[in-house]
Amino acid sequence: MRREDELDETEEDSEPTGGELVIARRTEPGTAPGTLVVDPEAPPTVLRVIAFAPAAVDDLGEVAITEIPGLLAREDRVTWIDVVGLGDAVVLESLAAAIGMHRLVLEDVVNVHQRPKCEEYGDRVYLVTRMTMSEPVGATEQVSLFLGPRFLVTLQEQLGDCLEPVRRRLRDSTSRLRQRGADYLAYAVLDAITDGYFPVLEELGERLEALEVEALDRPSLTTLGRIRGIKRELMLVRRTLWPMREMLGTLLRDEVPWFETQTRVFLRDCYDHSLQLLDITDSCRELASGLMDVYLSSTGIHMNEVMKVLTIVSTVFIPLTFIAGVYGMNFKDDKSPFNMPELAYRYGYPLCLLSMALIAVAMLVYFRRKRWIGAGSEQS
Amino acid sequence: MRREDELDETEEDSEPTGGELVIARRTEPGTAPGTLVVDPEAPPTVLRVIAFAPAAVDDLGEVAITEIPGLLAREDRVTWIDVVGLGDAVVLESLAAAIGMHRLVLEDVVNVHQRPKCEEYGDRVYLVTRMTMSEPVGATEQVSLFLGPRFLVTLQEQLGDCLEPVRRRLRDSTSRLRQRGADYLAYAVLDAITDGYFPVLEELGERLEALEVEALDRPSLTTLGRIRGIKRELMLVRRTLWPMREMLGTLLRDEVPWFETQTRVFLRDCYDHSLQLLDITDSCRELASGLMDVYLSSTGIHMNEVMKVLTIVSTVFIPLTFIAGVYGMNFKDDKSPFNMPELAYRYGYPLCLLSMALIAVAMLVYFRRKRWIGAGSEQS
Amino acid sequence: MRREDELDETEEDSEPTGGELVIARRTEPGTAPGTLVVDPEAPPTVLRVIAFAPAAVDDLGEVAITEIPGLLAREDRVTWIDVVGLGDAVVLESLAAAIGMHRLVLEDVVNVHQRPKCEEYGDRVYLVTRMTMSEPVGATEQVSLFLGPRFLVTLQEQLGDCLEPVRRRLRDSTSRLRQRGADYLAYAVLDAITDGYFPVLEELGERLEALEVEALDRPSLTTLGRIRGIKRELMLVRRTLWPMREMLGTLLRDEVPWFETQTRVFLRDCYDHSLQLLDITDSCRELASGLMDVYLSSTGIHMNEVMKVLTIVSTVFIPLTFIAGVYGMNFKDDKSPFNMPELAYRYGYPLCLLSMALIAVAMLVYFRRKRWIGAGSEQS
Amino acid sequence: MRREDELDETEEDSEPTGGELVIARRTEPGTAPGTLVVDPEAPPTVLRVIAFAPAAVDDLGEVAITEIPGLLAREDRVTWIDVVGLGDAVVLESLAAAIGMHRLVLEDVVNVHQRPKCEEYGDRVYLVTRMTMSEPVGATEQVSLFLGPRFLVTLQEQLGDCLEPVRRRLRDSTSRLRQRGADYLAYAVLDAITDGYFPVLEELGERLEALEVEALDRPSLTTLGRIRGIKRELMLVRRTLWPMREMLGTLLRDEVPWFETQTRVFLRDCYDHSLQLLDITDSCRELASGLMDVYLSSTGIHMNEVMKVLTIVSTVFIPLTFIAGVYGMNFKDDKSPFNMPELAYRYGYPLCLLSMALIAVAMLVYFRRKRWIGAGSEQS
Amino acid sequence: MRREDELDETEEDSEPTGGELVIARRTEPGTAPGTLVVDPEAPPTVLRVIAFAPAAVDDLGEVAITEIPGLLAREDRVTWIDVVGLGDAVVLESLAAAIGMHRLVLEDVVNVHQRPKCEEYGDRVYLVTRMTMSEPVGATEQVSLFLGPRFLVTLQEQLGDCLEPVRRRLRDSTSRLRQRGADYLAYAVLDAITDGYFPVLEELGERLEALEVEALDRPSLTTLGRIRGIKRELMLVRRTLWPMREMLGTLLRDEVPWFETQTRVFLRDCYDHSLQLLDITDSCRELASGLMDVYLSSTGIHMNEVMKVLTIVSTVFIPLTFIAGVYGMNFKDDKSPFNMPELAYRYGYPLCLLSMALIAVAMLVYFRRKRWIGAGSEQS
Repeated sequence: MRREDELDETEEDSEPTGGELVIARRTEPGTAPGTLVVDPEAPPTVLRVIAFAPAAVDDLGEVAITEIPGLLAREDRVTWIDVVGLGDAVVLESLAAAIGMHRLVLEDVVNVHQRPKCEEYGDRVYLVTRMTMSEPVGATEQVSLFLGPRFLVTLQEQLGDCLEPVRRRLRDSTSRLRQRGADYLAYAVLDAITDGYFPVLEELGERLEALEVEALDRPSLTTLGRIRGIKRELMLVRRTLWPMREMLGTLLRDEVPWFETQTRVFLRDCYDHSLQLLDITDSCRELASGLMDVYLSSTGIHMNEVMKVLTIVSTVFIPLTFIAGVYGMNFKDDKSPFNMPELAYRYGYPLCLLSMALIAVAMLVYFRRKRWIGAGSEQS
Repeated sequence: MRREDELDETEEDSEPTGGELVIARRTEPGTAPGTLVVDPEAPPTVLRVIAFAPAAVDDLGEVAITEIPGLLAREDRVTWIDVVGLGDAVVLESLAAAIGMHRLVLEDVVNVHQRPKCEEYGDRVYLVTRMTMSEPVGATEQVSLFLGPRFLVTLQEQLGDCLEPVRRRLRDSTSRLRQRGADYLAYAVLDAITDGYFPVLEELGERLEALEVEALDRPSLTTLGRIRGIKRELMLVRRTLWPMREMLGTLLRDEVPWFETQTRVFLRDCYDHSLQLLDITDSCRELASGLMDVYLSSTGIHMNEVMKVLTIVSTVFIPLTFIAGVYGMNFKDDKSPFNMPELAYRYGYPLCLLSMALIAVAMLVYFRRKRWIGAGSEQS
Repeated sequence: MRREDELDETEEDSEPTGGELVIARRTEPGTAPGTLVVDPEAPPTVLRVIAFAPAAVDDLGEVAITEIPGLLAREDRVTWIDVVGLGDAVVLESLAAAIGMHRLVLEDVVNVHQRPKCEEYGDRVYLVTRMTMSEPVGATEQVSLFLGPRFLVTLQEQLGDCLEPVRRRLRDSTSRLRQRGADYLAYAVLDAITDGYFPVLEELGERLEALEVEALDRPSLTTLGRIRGIKRELMLVRRTLWPMREMLGTLLRDEVPWFETQTRVFLRDCYDHSLQLLDITDSCRELASGLMDVYLSSTGIHMNEVMKVLTIVSTVFIPLTFIAGVYGMNFKDDKSPFNMPELAYRYGYPLCLLSMALIAVAMLVYFRRKRWIGAGSEQS
Repeated sequence: MRREDELDETEEDSEPTGGELVIARRTEPGTAPGTLVVDPEAPPTVLRVIAFAPAAVDDLGEVAITEIPGLLAREDRVTWIDVVGLGDAVVLESLAAAIGMHRLVLEDVVNVHQRPKCEEYGDRVYLVTRMTMSEPVGATEQVSLFLGPRFLVTLQEQLGDCLEPVRRRLRDSTSRLRQRGADYLAYAVLDAITDGYFPVLEELGERLEALEVEALDRPSLTTLGRIRGIKRELMLVRRTLWPMREMLGTLLRDEVPWFETQTRVFLRDCYDHSLQLLDITDSCRELASGLMDVYLSSTGIHMNEVMKVLTIVSTVFIPLTFIAGVYGMNFKDDKSPFNMPELAYRYGYPLCLLSMALIAVAMLVYFRRKRWIGAGSEQS
Repeated sequence: MRREDELDETEEDSEPTGGELVIARRTEPGTAPGTLVVDPEAPPTVLRVIAFAPAAVDDLGEVAITEIPGLLAREDRVTWIDVVGLGDAVVLESLAAAIGMHRLVLEDVVNVHQRPKCEEYGDRVYLVTRMTMSEPVGATEQVSLFLGPRFLVTLQEQLGDCLEPVRRRLRDSTSRLRQRGADYLAYAVLDAITDGYFPVLEELGERLEALEVEALDRPSLTTLGRIRGIKRELMLVRRTLWPMREMLGTLLRDEVPWFETQTRVFLRDCYDHSLQLLDITDSCRELASGLMDVYLSSTGIHMNEVMKVLTIVSTVFIPLTFIAGVYGMNFKDDKSPFNMPELAYRYGYPLCLLSMALIAVAMLVYFRRKRWIGAGSEQS
């Protein structure tokens, strides 16, 4: 219970770090597997159905759970049930019964912190993946795909806009999507979700570039925090992409019998994209690690510069102050001719000032020759 | 012997580090394998038996070792023997004889520092795992599962509360547990134990968050100690989880013939959880490593700040003190008109003080332009 | 759209870092796969054809797309279609139709940020690789090879000079190239592309050598930037070479039936070169990482040297100034014989100066014995 | 030759680092394989034989090489030939001939710096392993096991005490050892040797704990040396344990036909111990690496503390000295009423001292508020 | 061309780093594979032949290329053709024709910067390995072995002394070499080459030991350079040993049909040595990396020591100078009794000096208690 509240708070805060580190599970340890513990604050469950055949598309919009079995019974078309909101246990359980979904699968659907994975149950395929959300950058939500020969069910927490282009393409009668089965539709959804990571990584890459400038010019603890924030987001993205790649690989390798051969070609393309995403993520991680070095080095160099200039000032004046101290001594010239006769010289004072100036100049010249000070910064 | 005492002391101290680094073995090197060296201070052995069939559950409570063979002989129900306390060698050996447990297995049961593993002995399966304990965080105790077609024996040092929910579910007549065999019961126990690591990692994750604030605001050697403490606990948790994952994988891969097919589906779920736990552990380890960087950087920056302000104070006053030193010189103005005529000027002293103030202000302005001092911190 | 512009800008700037970190894709996430989005600023598509048989070579120069099917129909010779410029969607689609290229392949050809890979489509083989460009160092452009039993199509963005030697060899009647089929021609192209990385790595290695000297002698933030620049280029080169090695390995392992056995021997040679390139890249990366240590250490040592000399100056003068201060005190010798009688000694002042000199010399000797100052740097 | 001397010196010095880094080979590069170069300073070869059957044990003590063939000929009992000292080439060659040992094996026996390994020669098995020695900690000596169906030959440099418990168990008539063959005896020897690493790692772990305290409280270059010493020993232990694990794995996997099935169960136990040892070694290595961070951080913090307190003292006194300098100036009050009238005030001096005290207190309060100084350390 | 010259220069300089980082290839990218570009400055090609049978050895010394076919035709003996100097393309091409060497192999022989590898061409085996050279340490030269059923051809750039012991053994009639075929001869050569790395690693290990002392006692940028030099050599050695191990493994695994079974046993021994060499290399690399830490830490500690002593001197004198400054103030005692009456006290001056001494002693005692200064270093 405590953990649930906490989780919700984090979500309400729209914390900009883009993801929680410790992915909390909602069921207490020891509860029976398959127990459906629905988040009481989750949005209510809405089912949207699009049925299509090569010839026609039938966008049924919101549909009651009771209509689902009838819709699925029709063999002449592919049915896409788009479930948004995981707050209604009754509806979800009815749906699971209608589409032949195992209790454990339903539990995974509702506990929205699964690793991406691919599981086969007879001729059904269950896929878990995570979709990027537009706001905040780096945040993801779990999308479950449950796939049968003539239907695809997608289940997600909130209405994500990643799938909108797929819907648009379905409505377009010339689209290849309309000609193919549920397997190709599933591919299209997976492809849209995978490609959604490109802009996220681009955004992170741009932020890294900006941070490099910041780390060189004005490094502060805030810079450090920002670098860590990006490293953390990259870690989370990688933690999602790595099993996603595995999931796509499994799907590609394990030949689901009713998948068309041609879909495999497209899946391979999607798998390639996931490899490319991992490449980019790893490059970004390497850059971010290097940035830490830049930051530390830059901090040190800025501090050194301060210390150097200040110490030079001190060092120049210390011998001068010593000379002034010497001629401030009170040795009595009336007791001995050796006692500070300089004080009575006609040009004693001017010569003293002159020698001080000469010493100061000599030191600055020496420092400059040793390249400890730049051109003209301390002479004035 | 020495090592045993030491071990007990550590346990009595309830040392908050949550685990010993070097897992001590109790038998001397070179003793015969299968030698049963029982810890003399271990709690006495208590056997609790719950027998169940789909129709009825029979919670027999504490049972004498002599009754065990009779209980196991009944084929119509599944018997769960829950052994707590590993202090009584005679009872344990009788039990081992009754359930067909190899001497080496019994030795592993008693030497409570095994790596999690899965071993098959004919139609018996021996599983070693480690259960988290509520107090202190991160501590674990070894739980052995010995599994036959009609019975499950769990052996643990102390009464852990991880298994209580499983017992509760057994008493519930509607529970799926009652419908299934010993394999499903073993799964339920493994699942409860695995899920017990989620709160532990959550606790460690929260402590890491708190430490990040501490490392930024007031880094000290204590902070360093705390970071190291968490890294150490994460290392120990990982050292347990990694072979646990392997153990579950072995159980999943090696088809024990009398396991029901459906149990495999549930085991896969449990295996997924172990993967997820390892993911989280690795993320935490990465964060903890990053925290060390934050700590070191923060220490440096705090120190630099101190040094900077102090050095600025010094630098501003050094030229001023030099000027005061000059006018403290005793050049005799009665001997030469060049000797410090300023001292006799009407506005000599005020001008001197004014020039000192001007120099100080000029330096502060210069420092501020170079962004070495912030807004308004040193002017007053 | 935004991303495209950005990409073009980067290319126009001829940024010397030699490659973009985040490889941008040109299609929006969610667009239908196989959609051909041609970069509007890409150069127009030009097709050059060389057809050859052992006896004769026929360099047809620029050829219209309409002639291609006729050229490919001739079975008695091998046709190499060299496509430069990917700006004309109509031509590319006609070409794809003529040579039996899948839509997805065409999409990969046009989206010039693919990972090197090898894909087989029936008896066609599609290879993606990246060719180094002479300017700037480290930049690469994508080269696609589409290979059938009697033809090779190479597709690239700009006219690269890597392939010129291959063309020259084709024109030479004694060349082995003329005797062999399209498979050997493809090998020759791949070999030329792979070998193109040797000069690039050599250049980077030489720059590393130069940076080592710079890091030791005059380390600055610029040095740091240069080291990071090289590390980044090496990372990009590695990101290209790694999948290129994989691609060559796949080509070697998957036996394309119409490849001659002898070509395999040559491909193994090419594969060896890719291994060697990866070895060199990794060595360079290791050196570059070590260079960072050198840089940091060198910065620290230079700073320490400054601080040391300056602090020594300060320390020598501080006790002297103290003595001058003592004899500047105004204790009245007329009130007590104990009050500073030294001031009235005949040799008071000379002795005072002498003792100051002795103290200064003693300290310098001490510092020198402790090896804090070198021979003769501070005595004068 | 040079290398041999060096090696002996190292051993005579009983250098406490517990092992040489570069394991020297005794034969010159290019000598014929199988050449027996015996260390001239190695102790003379002594053969001790224990023959046993389930009913009786026959401890023959030291035996001449000529008796060996006769002893081995007896089929009714298992013969254990315990060879100590590798200094007598003639005896060793006779022995090798008697037990059918390949020349290369004999060379490996004598060159006591082999990696642990398992090799099969027909029905003979040759095992190389390394035994810990009690003095110094971390030192190991090579033990070779040559194993036939009815005999076991162990060969070691010096009399190690690891095997004494095995001998004791053999003499015990109730021991399982007596009931089994040469394979089980070999297992018992391997188990005793493997378990000998637990106390060594425990010792190293305890030293690490002690070093952590030292690193925090009084870090010095000695601490650094000690940390490096432990890391080095752990590296050497790991370099031994890793191939030992491999060796046990090979023995477990490759089914030697005359090994009893039951022995395999025991070997699996031994293999588990080697895994556990590697786990502990890796944990220790990780701790030791972390200790280096603690050391560096602690050094820095101790230094910073010194610098901070000292700089604070300086900073407080610098403004005060400035004020004293001002009132030490010699502006003539008789020439102008503006010239230092304060010097003639009735309370001039006390007010001056008071203002100095106020400035000092104000600075200390400021420093304390900024948390740069602790409670009450500088006020007195 | 430029690259070739450069390479030669490096070799003439006998640069002590022992190897070039970027292994240059001599052929231009894009040249036809199998093109023989002989280094014009390479020494002329000399062929030495030793033919042997169990009964007799026939050391033919230098032999003209025209005699080779005749020598190879004799079936009753094994012919070893030892080719030194790769400067004569005509001779090399004739030789290649005589022994059935593929053009690509000949190209690899002449381009002396190959990775060690094993390639089979029908019943011929081609092996590339690298031999250590006595001068400078760490330098290697490429040795190619071309092996047929009745002959072995070794090809190297310069006359290396690694193979001399093999030649000596051939001349010895009792040697096993004489009894065996070309496969055993090849093994003997490989063994001699592999064992040649032991002294090199020993040398590097000794240098590391010496550097550790240097890094602790007098760390300088030269030390850093030396550490980097050793790391670089270890990197190069590892880059050679790793593929050499692979090459030996391939030779061991791929059963060349005409290899005698017994030779395999010897090859396994050679393979073991390569593993051992890699172990030692990795240990050395780890030590070298640790040395960098020692170096950095030692630099820091030496600097800290300087700063600490110097700062203590400053801090002790600053309060004393302040007191002297106070009594140097010119408050007029004739205007007010409160104005510095101390100056007129009978014991004013002695008490002032005494209090100064007390303050100095108190500070030193305080510093000593805080353990910032050692015993007796600053009191005098």
